[in-house]
Amino acid sequence: MLIHENSKRLVLQVGQRRAILLLLAVAWMVIWTLILWAKPIDAVPYPAGYRHWVHVKSMYVGPQNPAFERNGGLHHIYANEKAMEGYRTDKFPDGSVIVADFFEPRENAGVTTEGPRRRIDVMVKDSKLYAETGGWGFEQFRGDSQTDRMVTPQIITKCVECHSQQKNHDYVFSTFRK
Amino acid sequence: MLIHENSKRLVLQVGQRRAILLLLAVAWMVIWTLILWAKPIDAVPYPAGYRHWVHVKSMYVGPQNPAFERNGGLHHIYANEKAMEGYRTDKFPDGSVIVADFFEPRENAGVTTEGPRRRIDVMVKDSKLYAETGGWGFEQFRGDSQTDRMVTPQIITKCVECHSQQKNHDYVFSTFRK
Repeated sequence: MLIHENSKRLVLQVGQRRAILLLLAVAWMVIWTLILWAKPIDAVPYPAGYRHWVHVKSMYVGPQNPAFERNGGLHHIYANEKAMEGYRTDKFPDGSVIVADFFEPRENAGVTTEGPRRRIDVMVKDSKLYAETGGWGFEQFRGDSQTDRMVTPQIITKCVECHSQQKNHDYVFSTFRK
Repeated sequence: MLIHENSKRLVLQVGQRRAILLLLAVAWMVIWTLILWAKPIDAVPYPAGYRHWVHVKSMYVGPQNPAFERNGGLHHIYANEKAMEGYRTDKFPDGSVIVADFFEPRENAGVTTEGPRRRIDVMVKDSKLYAETGGWGFEQFRGDSQTDRMVTPQIITKCVECHSQQKNHDYVFSTFRK
């Protein structure tokens, strides 16, 4: 009986060792997958839940505009609570996020509605992380994707060049439409 | 000294009576002003704070549309939290409020922005108060006014006729655009 119990314990111990080794192997793979897929430390995160943020203002880019092919349709701007503070004070605190949401136009009898999403443009304020670009991080996500990033270093240079015209409003073009 | 004190008391009493009479007169005027200005019990209240509600969707009515003169420009729909439940379930609970916000167009080089506010259209769900109109109360407020009501019984009849096409979606035309 005692031997039988001991042998059982031995079987369990071998099983446990195998399980531990398997767990270690899986953990090793998961960690490396995460490292390889990881975004750089200064990457602008996808602005989860922005569709429930405050709607700042909108515009419509029509066929007469030279950028119609690329930007035609309805655009909306959304702001999180911290960014709303910035719209009130002209000083956007760290953690402010502003999203511009671009839609293809769907026109019928002169009424244009929102077609598929072209992309979202995101600005995130972090005065330390993005000190070299006016305290703002810039990113674009293609269509409805939360991972397909469109911004390159060249595009970021253009973002900063253009937005720095608005230094008095902390690099932000839009104002809150009442 | 005693006589002097008594006369003082008398003067105070006369003064107090006058003050009380004046207060009563003022109260009487205030009450009647309120009664005369009061909205009917089933009036749709102005949707205070709706600009911070969720933005449901938008459209642009252009010059090619026959209603351009009256409705041309950008339109936005906002919903309070209860109405958001309705957009998810197709059943809008009492207390749901939906606002359609209409702006005159300001066009430049094919880009149309939001000019002055034309009006807001408001739908409020109260299945008892508005039982005769599908459970919804309808109102319009002119421009930026919170008191200039545009809806007449004739307009309400039209609202209900049109919205009753959407009985499957609880009289609501819009759907939440993700």
